[in-house]
Order: sequence, then C-alpha cells, then structure tokens
Amino acid sequence: MSQRVKVKQILLDEKTDYNVVVKGWIRSFRNNQFIALNDGSTNNNIQVVIDQESVTPELLKRLTTGAAISVSGQVIPSMGKGQRVEIKAIELEILGDCDPEKYPLQLKNRPSLEYLREIAHLRFRTNTFGAIFRLRHALAFAVHKFFNEKGFVYLHTPIITASDAEGAGEMFHVTSFDLKNPPLTESGEINYKEDFFGRATNLTVSGQLEGELGAMAFGDIYTFGPTFRAENSNTARHLAEFWMIEPEMAFYDLEENMNLAEAFIKYVLSYALENNREDLEFLAQRLLEEEKQKPQQERSEMGLIEKLEFVLNNEFVRITYTEAIDILKNSKPNKTKKFNYLIEEWGADLQSEHERYLVEKHFKKPVILTDYPKAIKAFYMKQNEDGKTVRAMDILFPGIGEIVGGSQREENYDKLVTRMEEMHLPVEEMSWYLDTRRFGSAPHAGFGLGFERLVLFASGMGNIRDVIPFPRTPKSAEF
Amino acid sequence: MSQRVKVKQILLDEKTDYNVVVKGWIRSFRNNQFIALNDGSTNNNIQVVIDQESVTPELLKRLTTGAAISVSGQVIPSMGKGQRVEIKAIELEILGDCDPEKYPLQLKNRPSLEYLREIAHLRFRTNTFGAIFRLRHALAFAVHKFFNEKGFVYLHTPIITASDAEGAGEMFHVTSFDLKNPPLTESGEINYKEDFFGRATNLTVSGQLEGELGAMAFGDIYTFGPTFRAENSNTARHLAEFWMIEPEMAFYDLEENMNLAEAFIKYVLSYALENNREDLEFLAQRLLEEEKQKPQQERSEMGLIEKLEFVLNNEFVRITYTEAIDILKNSKPNKTKKFNYLIEEWGADLQSEHERYLVEKHFKKPVILTDYPKAIKAFYMKQNEDGKTVRAMDILFPGIGEIVGGSQREENYDKLVTRMEEMHLPVEEMSWYLDTRRFGSAPHAGFGLGFERLVLFASGMGNIRDVIPFPRTPKSAEF
Repeated sequence: MSQRVKVKQILLDEKTDYNVVVKGWIRSFRNNQFIALNDGSTNNNIQVVIDQESVTPELLKRLTTGAAISVSGQVIPSMGKGQRVEIKAIELEILGDCDPEKYPLQLKNRPSLEYLREIAHLRFRTNTFGAIFRLRHALAFAVHKFFNEKGFVYLHTPIITASDAEGAGEMFHVTSFDLKNPPLTESGEINYKEDFFGRATNLTVSGQLEGELGAMAFGDIYTFGPTFRAENSNTARHLAEFWMIEPEMAFYDLEENMNLAEAFIKYVLSYALENNREDLEFLAQRLLEEEKQKPQQERSEMGLIEKLEFVLNNEFVRITYTEAIDILKNSKPNKTKKFNYLIEEWGADLQSEHERYLVEKHFKKPVILTDYPKAIKAFYMKQNEDGKTVRAMDILFPGIGEIVGGSQREENYDKLVTRMEEMHLPVEEMSWYLDTRRFGSAPHAGFGLGFERLVLFASGMGNIRDVIPFPRTPKSAEF
Repeated sequence: MSQRVKVKQILLDEKTDYNVVVKGWIRSFRNNQFIALNDGSTNNNIQVVIDQESVTPELLKRLTTGAAISVSGQVIPSMGKGQRVEIKAIELEILGDCDPEKYPLQLKNRPSLEYLREIAHLRFRTNTFGAIFRLRHALAFAVHKFFNEKGFVYLHTPIITASDAEGAGEMFHVTSFDLKNPPLTESGEINYKEDFFGRATNLTVSGQLEGELGAMAFGDIYTFGPTFRAENSNTARHLAEFWMIEPEMAFYDLEENMNLAEAFIKYVLSYALENNREDLEFLAQRLLEEEKQKPQQERSEMGLIEKLEFVLNNEFVRITYTEAIDILKNSKPNKTKKFNYLIEEWGADLQSEHERYLVEKHFKKPVILTDYPKAIKAFYMKQNEDGKTVRAMDILFPGIGEIVGGSQREENYDKLVTRMEEMHLPVEEMSWYLDTRRFGSAPHAGFGLGFERLVLFASGMGNIRDVIPFPRTPKSAEF
C-alpha cells in the first residue's frame, strides 16, 4: 500500500505519476467531482478529483465540508488554476462525517473573529487561524533556536511561587484548600501552614528573579513559560495567562542588553518570513481586506510583510526617557491638548498614546527608550549616577506599544537593599535573591518579551485573544 | 579592547597567541598563582595564570572561590595537565567579592545533594548541577527540534482550566478571591460567578484534550508546558509541578503512536549524547562514584553512557498487558511471594515493582505494554473489539518506571459518550471535546512524556527534585 503523505509535501514536490494516500478534512466539494482537501500541514488544499461513476450516490452525499476522509490515488498534473498537481482518487473512505446542518464552519458567510472566539476549539480549522498558529509555532521555534545557537540555557522557572517578582501585579492564588472551609489559626487567620506548600502561594508574574539566579551560574539563560496577571483588564492587548520569554545575561550592560533584544526580535521575524511565507501572505491579504473597511486615513501605510521587512531593515531608534519627554512636550498633540494625558513635566509615566506618538508619528520606527525615572520602575533596576534614573529599556513597536521591557540589574548589594527598603519590600524573605549580590555579584541585565504581543505584531491581528489558542480573560476560561 | 569570549569557545578552539577578555567565577585559586575560572558555558574551567609581582596583596586576598572577575589576557599553550591552553592575565578586575567565611559552596567536603536542594538558588554553580541543567536544556531543545522537523505545531494549551482531563488527579484551585472572605450564594455555597473567570478554575493536569482539538485541525501538534498534581506524594519520582510533552496526531493508530514515541525518545537521547558529551561523562563519573557506596549486587550493570547507548541501539519490547500478566504470574518473585502486591488475576493494576521486574529483570530493555484493561485506564482510550481492553500503551524504562503513557483515542462519538456516562463524567460540560467526534472525526492517537523523568533517566540522578531548577513538593515552594 502507498504511504500517507502530507499535503504540504505533495504541493512542494510538484512531482507527478506516483501513488499516495492522503488524509484530511474536506474544505469544499463542487460539481460532485472536486474535493478541496486540507490536512493542516498548510493552508493550501490539494484538489482530489473523483470519478463520479465509481462512487455511490450515498457516498457522494457524505462528502460535506468538515468531513474527514482518506484517499488513495495518483498524483497527476492539474489542469485547474492555482495548483500544479492534483490527485485522481482510486479509493476514498469516509473516516468521520460532518453534518452540514450542524457544523458551525459550514456558513457561507465568513464567520466573524468574535464568533470564532466562542468556538475556539474549532477555529483552528479556518485559514486565518491555521496561518496564525503555524506562525506562532514558527516564532516559538525560532526563539529556542536563537538562544540555543548563542549558548543560552533554557531554564524552567517555577509557575507556583511564594514570591512576587515585580512587587506589584495582581496575582492569582493557588491553594488546595476547600474554599468553603479553609483551616484557620487560633486568631482566625487562614492557616497556610496547612496548605499544600505550607505557605501562601500564587501564580508567577515573572521568572526574572529566578532567572537571575541561573544567570549567575550559567552566564546566559532564558525562560519561555506561562505567566499570569489577575488584572481586570478587558482590552485587546491583555490576557490573564500569557507566555513570556525572559533572557538574563551575566556580564551584560544595558547597551549589550539592547543589542541582544534587537537582534533577537529581528532573528525571529526573519525566521518566520523565511519559513512561513505562505502563512504571512495569507495574513497580509486578510489585513488588507480588513483595512478596506476603514476610512482612508486610518489605514496602515504598509502591508504586513512590508512592515516586517521594515523592522528587519532598520535600526531601532534609541533615546532616553528625558529626550522622549522633550519631544512629547513640544509635540503637536500635547500643545493642542489632543493627548488625554498631557505631558507637563519630567517624571510622568508614559501612556500608550505617548508611546504610539513616538513610534508611529515621530520616528516611524521601533524605538528603545532608556533611563527612566526610578520612581516609575522596579526595585531591581540599576541606579544611574544621577540619583534619579535607572538603566531601564523598553522597546516600543508600532500598533503594539511596549513589546519588551528590560534593564541592567542593580548588582550592588547595599544599593539594592536600600532601594528595597524604600519600596517596603520584604528584604528578609528575599534573602535568596540577595545572595546573588552577596556571593560573586557581577553586572548583569535581561529583558522580558510578551510572546503574544510578538505574535500579534507578526500576524497583523488586532486582538491578542486571536493569537493564543485558548485565551484566559476576565469571566472567560472556556475549554 | 579585546572581545569577551566564553570559556567553552576558548577550550574548543585550542588556538593560542591571541588576546581575550574572559569573565566568570573563581572555582579555585592555588599557589597564589593559578585561578580555575568558570563562566557556566561548560563545566570545564580555564586556567588563568597571574603574575604575582603585578598584583597587590590586597587583591590576592580577594581571589576567593565564588568571586566574579574579569580578566584580560593572552591565550597561551598550557604546561599543566588536562588542558591545552591557558590565559596569562594582563589585567584582572574583581567584579564581585565572595566572602569565604559565608559562602555555602566554600566547603572543602563535597556538599550532599540534600543540602544542595536547600540552596537550590546556588546549586547551579556546582559541577553536578551545571551538567544536569545544561543536559536538561539540550533535551528540551531536542524536543522542539524533533517535532519541528516533522511538521508538528507547538500548541500552548491552557494552564488555568475549568476542565479535568483525566477525570481523576487531584488539582490545585486557582482563585482571585480573598480566601478569608469568599463571596457566597444565597444558599451559602462559594459564588464562583464572582471569581475572576466567573467559574471555578484549577491548574491543568494535562493538555491532551485541548491538544486533540488542535490535532483535528493541524494534523500533528505537540504541547510542552507545566502540569500540576496536588497529590501528597513525597517520593523521589513525584513533583507537584512538572513539565510534560504531549504530542497528538490525527490519522495515527496505536502502532504508529508507539513508533513515534520510540523514535522521539531515541532522537532526544541521541541529541544529548552528541551535543552534551562532556556533561554526560561528568554525570557518568558521578554515578559511578555514588554506586561505589552500594553493595556489589545493587550496583548497575551499565554505566550511564552505556545505558543511553543501549536504549538507542535496541528496539523496545512490545507486549500486551495480558502477556505481561502471564509473565508476572509465573515469575519467581510472584511464586516466592516477594512482590508486595501478588499478581493473581487478569485486571490487576501493575505496581512499580512489577514494571521494574519486567524491564530490569525479565527483558532488560525498555518495554511498551499495550492493551490494558479498560477499567484501569482513562475514558478517552479507544475500546478494543474484545470489550475488555483499550488501545493504551505505556513505555516503561529501567530505574524510572513509566516514562510515557499514551493511547489511540476513541474516535467514535457513541462509544465515547457511553464510556463517559459509565464513568460519571460531565458529558454536557465537555461538549466542546465531543465536537471533535461530531464533526469530521478521525482515528487519532497521542502520548504524554514527563520531561523530568526523561532528564532523570538521561542524567542518572536518583531524585526528581534534582533535575528541575526549583522543585515544588508537599510543604515546599522555596524561591
């Protein structure tokens, strides 16, 4: 018997006159003769031509959109448009029927993204989500490939944690208590000593602190794992559960950190352009059609692929927070009071509107902002000599805003402890973290990249819920 | 100024007469002249030779084990044993001191694995844990490489979930409630409608069910993510948080599933042997020394590397559960009542002692057991014609026991629902899962591999807490 071959391979090979077995799902069936068959290996279908005379009417009726079939046949040159080869069916077997009256993807009208979110367990079967999640795969693989080639160690930092890396960020509680009857101490508090881990635990908001422990042994490490925020943000940019990549490098200063981050982003986008061209072309076309619904002046100047290539071919702009404030202060939307938050003085936290102005209007390029006021940044960032700013860097992307947040870390034990005390952090409890500064401390730096924001940028999608398989958001944890 | 080069590179190149900068941590300093410097890129140190006359006594005193230094110098041929090249220091800077009175890894006696578990944030700096976690990295990378080459899509299945894939397995609760005052309904129950996700949620025990949704669109998918068990198992083989790899393949039957699993395990072990030979040799030596403490008859017949090569070079034995029961029934430990659980009749669940007998005594090879009684397996496994068994397969490894559990899945809607009802599973709630059998169902199969068990096997370590960076176990969630 012939071997099963994936559709992607048959289309790629363009060979003819050999026998194959293909298995997949019917995307369409027309003229009682032409099946467009998809097996998920690519968005492209292979055309299967059946000989009506050898097929019973009963079988014909079962060849409906969504049905799973196995076809044994001969690969021959195709007369049809858009394909070089097709399969002349010799044997055809229905593996699983699909009732056209009930199948949600049966609709002739294109289902909306909102509707597809409700049937996230089936949306993988559409061209749009096929392309998105193959792209997501390619980006994830490129992440590992990049760091592996550079000798970084992939470190699985803990998901359940008793520490709170950012000193802020709302966290989810993890417990094995019966919530109705948690054990109490004599004074009526929850008795966490009786909980599974013998203490209160949460879901991690970042693997950075643990990553630093690794960096101070292996030199270069990275994490790539799920992180969590129990924040009630119902926006197109926030998820309660998302995947983050956090490299941490001993002996790196802020500039080397920026260089790595820029090289990293360019590497993974370039990998996707090379390996997932068809998926990207499909998504570019989708975006183009979506944009046609918008008024002229709201449309993007660049198509998706142009935009990715633009990022690859241009150096990111690097300016300090102080320089950014000057630009924003003197900007038209600030002077004409178009910003919702007017920039009046140094020290202001930048809002999404300001970041977008810098990236999309002023520079028209990705921008790296450095040296933020220490008051608006985390305790672990290296303090500058000026006493006011820290060696932070955020990378801002068009349409996305912050895609990377990083810093050189404060390696000086005394400075770090003083800052922790100022910020009322539990110095004693974090003794393990401080050990990195006690024993062989060294300059080091790192950053975090929200993986879904990267996929959002690369796919040209507008809502972060459409680039993660099963989004977790306020009031929603389906599937 | 010269470029910083990693130690691994300098040792690999074996070039001489060029200038470099190296940065790392002092492993030892002897004769006031020879520094063994490690930067985490390899377990091997580079010898840095300092010219005593150009160094102040004050600096000499600070050259202690664990201190971080930067050295600029010339790579020259080494006269010493065990290395081809060394560095003649030109400039030396202390980046971070390390007080020998306080540094826990200062001890002259080799610290025990138990003690190192307590200082898991520092144990990365030892040779043993350096080797283990570089090996873990290599295995993780090989996992992605294997599946990427085969066209599988890496699917991030959800961590927070409202479903319970195995219908068993104790789960951790995830909530954003204040545990002291959760909102109650009128009838006094916890009002989960007010919780973050609007329903009760838990940490996933498996991504399989969601993985199946992906497989029925992409054909082949895999997951690689954290999974959780709130089981009070304080053993050397159990963790409350561990990483699992779960491939799921449309159109695969049980045999193809076994073929894939066997090829997969061999691929990743072979990758490690090729890319992490030095780490494995170190771990082999460690194991050998550990085994010397044991009585002769308890020692392994093979060294670590021999054992890995043995797995690569031998086909796994494939037998049915029924055949295994026959072997066990007639085995010496069963007849002489040495087993704690005697095998008396077909249907008995196999204990670790039985698995070990089959693998370590009877076949002396990895064994794949298939076609288990349906009563002891999960609801989703494909039912055999005999009405008694299911198309399950477990792969058993020497010293580890079950390393893979998998099955062909029941693709028939009616059979699956009947089984779910027999097992009192919430059919209605799992309607999304059943949709895969309603719309274009197809034969499919998959398996799960506990990543830490793989690392345990490959590293020759005895306790699973030593192969994950920060183990989560009952009463312990440090760091």
